[in-house]
Amino acid sequence: MKIKKILIANRGEIALRIIRACKEMGITSVAIFSEPDLNGLWVRRADEAYPILGDPIKAYLDYERIIDIAKKAGVDAIHPGYGFLSENGDFARACERAGIKFIGPRADDIDLYGDKMASKTAMKKVGMPVLEGTEEPIIDIKEAEKIAKQIGFPVIIKAAFGGGGRGMRIVRSEEEFKDLFEAATSESMKFFGRGEVFIEKYVENPRHIEVQILADTHGNVIHLGIRDCSIQRRHQKVIEIAESPSLSKDTRDKICEVSVNALKKLGYVSAGTVEFLVDENENFYFIEMNTRVQVEHPVSEVVSGVDIIQEMIRVAEGEKLSITQDDVNIRGFAIEFRLNSEDPTKNFMPTTGTIKNLMLPGGIGIRNDNALYEGYKLPTNYDSMIGKLIVYGKDWEDTVNKARRALDELNIGGVVTNIPLHRAVIRDEDFIKGKFTTKYLDEKLEKLDIKNEDIFEKEEAKAKFLKELVDELKKQ
Amino acid sequence: MKIKKILIANRGEIALRIIRACKEMGITSVAIFSEPDLNGLWVRRADEAYPILGDPIKAYLDYERIIDIAKKAGVDAIHPGYGFLSENGDFARACERAGIKFIGPRADDIDLYGDKMASKTAMKKVGMPVLEGTEEPIIDIKEAEKIAKQIGFPVIIKAAFGGGGRGMRIVRSEEEFKDLFEAATSESMKFFGRGEVFIEKYVENPRHIEVQILADTHGNVIHLGIRDCSIQRRHQKVIEIAESPSLSKDTRDKICEVSVNALKKLGYVSAGTVEFLVDENENFYFIEMNTRVQVEHPVSEVVSGVDIIQEMIRVAEGEKLSITQDDVNIRGFAIEFRLNSEDPTKNFMPTTGTIKNLMLPGGIGIRNDNALYEGYKLPTNYDSMIGKLIVYGKDWEDTVNKARRALDELNIGGVVTNIPLHRAVIRDEDFIKGKFTTKYLDEKLEKLDIKNEDIFEKEEAKAKFLKELVDELKKQ
Repeated sequence: MKIKKILIANRGEIALRIIRACKEMGITSVAIFSEPDLNGLWVRRADEAYPILGDPIKAYLDYERIIDIAKKAGVDAIHPGYGFLSENGDFARACERAGIKFIGPRADDIDLYGDKMASKTAMKKVGMPVLEGTEEPIIDIKEAEKIAKQIGFPVIIKAAFGGGGRGMRIVRSEEEFKDLFEAATSESMKFFGRGEVFIEKYVENPRHIEVQILADTHGNVIHLGIRDCSIQRRHQKVIEIAESPSLSKDTRDKICEVSVNALKKLGYVSAGTVEFLVDENENFYFIEMNTRVQVEHPVSEVVSGVDIIQEMIRVAEGEKLSITQDDVNIRGFAIEFRLNSEDPTKNFMPTTGTIKNLMLPGGIGIRNDNALYEGYKLPTNYDSMIGKLIVYGKDWEDTVNKARRALDELNIGGVVTNIPLHRAVIRDEDFIKGKFTTKYLDEKLEKLDIKNEDIFEKEEAKAKFLKELVDELKKQ
Repeated sequence: MKIKKILIANRGEIALRIIRACKEMGITSVAIFSEPDLNGLWVRRADEAYPILGDPIKAYLDYERIIDIAKKAGVDAIHPGYGFLSENGDFARACERAGIKFIGPRADDIDLYGDKMASKTAMKKVGMPVLEGTEEPIIDIKEAEKIAKQIGFPVIIKAAFGGGGRGMRIVRSEEEFKDLFEAATSESMKFFGRGEVFIEKYVENPRHIEVQILADTHGNVIHLGIRDCSIQRRHQKVIEIAESPSLSKDTRDKICEVSVNALKKLGYVSAGTVEFLVDENENFYFIEMNTRVQVEHPVSEVVSGVDIIQEMIRVAEGEKLSITQDDVNIRGFAIEFRLNSEDPTKNFMPTTGTIKNLMLPGGIGIRNDNALYEGYKLPTNYDSMIGKLIVYGKDWEDTVNKARRALDELNIGGVVTNIPLHRAVIRDEDFIKGKFTTKYLDEKLEKLDIKNEDIFEKEEAKAKFLKELVDELKKQ
């Protein structure tokens, strides 16, 4: 069934990303927007746009209203993007009940992989290496301690029904177990409404490596290589790389093969990401499966030449993937820098403002994914990520060089952003050498030379100086 | 010898392109600028910038002054870009005399290939198929007519010391020969100071196909595939494609092989382009060799993943090319749209203005090469090309779709441009089917639906309408 009209149940850069794919495929696009998002670029660029007034967060979560709009607009399908409703099995089911295609995995698979323990059990069954740990969510402190001792310290406690680092604690010895367990469960309760946690073997100095998967309803499952997302601040990804500058080819191949084989056996459909921790000896352990397009999908797109969103839409139409594994030829490296409205010199405090002096880098090896424009007032109701800069080159060295050049060109005036953090990281010897684990950023932060500046204003000052020089010369 | 500092003897987008390569390679960049170019983005972005006052055109042609600046600034090398001094053998020699590397071919080769007849003779000797025609520049009308009759009509008369379609006439019958010959020689005299012409067999309905060559001083000559530059207006390229949507793989391979073999035998060095006419039966004929980086080099870069400017610099350092032919793996297609400050609804009359509402396309498959920014006042002294949009995709259809989407996003406010022409071409059935020859644009122009509009203002109007709608809803 050809999809003719898609509603995008999301906002910001990912909404625009999906609208672009629709336009390229000749599909009519429908945006939704909250009141503070009235001036969003994706709202202007969509073929149709419908307001959802009231609470600005709820606007993108209230799936009954969203499905009502979808029916009213006569759409065939809904793309959920990432975040919001993207990993909500009930939403996927409600779409299907309303006769609207959900562009993503089957609802039951969203539920399965959304439950971290069930996901781990399922993966283990089909031959995936996992970390030793609890098989079920746990809340009883005595039983938890017993299990932790069986696994052996260090262990990590993680919220069973959460993510993003909340309700998470590392315990290195028996003595500190009780206090940290209580902290984890109460934080989990606060953020996710449920206190249950998992306990797992903890990997010291790990790299976060993930595999981009595409699968269709005809049994074809392929990978687009790996991403190294080790550069994180407080468990939130900040810089993502395709492939990895440090992992051996042998491990990269193995990790992709294991992922494809597992998801073939499990009958997975649509785009997905298999996430791993990799230790210093390149042992890798499955940690979770994300059943949606990731923020960092562009790095895989630029190295593979495959359009992940287009493939997702094709799969939802019941078509085969447009490429086979043999067609996928990874070329060079890519780095994505998340651009956040936060102040890197003030403990990453959220910032806001009206965009001015916007200078996006251009030329070879650059991809800009954002929904920014001159005069755009950033709403304060949402996540601080306002865009992404993606840079690619023929090898790691070239990619780092192009990224340094691109970050030096990039200016988002009118708001303080984390661009200076990226400029510092790209100049750091350890980063350049590919020497980083998930601890890199938290450990480096103090040592990096980070200063906020408006590049455009600096360049204007230079032009003024040259003007004075020329005027002087003309007098002579 | 490692190059540490480069002067860029050019302006506009290509100056910025070369500065970017310098920054990526850790090389200090030096810009020159005429008085009207004081606010050029490349001037602001270069590490150093020197004014050349007086005539604004001469500023970029006066090579003695340029070399004086180069010496004063202590540069190792000069990159000439395209146009201006890029194909001036005397300039290359003067650089070398001053102890400064000229980043390009050897001076004698610039002279050889700059002389169209000598170039053709040299190419013919090493097995290149050429069009029958005069072997030497000719000005005597009687002799010319005799030769034309020998070749057989149609023939084409071309200025021997010019280019860009000036001093060029097609003669389809003996009767019209005299008048057209006189027109060609007098136009050539007017534009190039010399009236001599060549006469050649004329190919009806040809495609313009060219091969991108890279060669080093160690005897390595490789190609980066072909470009189809058939979309021209009055013999000026407007849209360039890599590879070609219509040429068979067999012909593409042959044309590349012939070019590499010829330039190996001739000992060519640096970047160069071998240009061909290809007839309806895919017979191909060498027409000329360009001894510089071309305006359209980005399409070859994005499909091959090779950075042509970086390779040119490496070759000038005496290094080997960083890639072999086996490393070159052409992926998908790319289209370059030249963005000109001219009015497509008023016979392409040159336009000017101050840039506002600048919206460059983003997302997957886009490369922006320009030196534009919000508030930049376009100087009126130079060529109308103000930038280039390059779009690439996994196959021809995907590339066309992405190009349509990108052109619809692109807005350069404050000045009338030829963007609406591109928007019309990308929707034309013949273009989409790859059915075009060098006559395409001149024949299509009247039939295309071209209208100038400011997309940003349209989008603002849409946002205003949505605001009213929301206000209305809130009242209810």
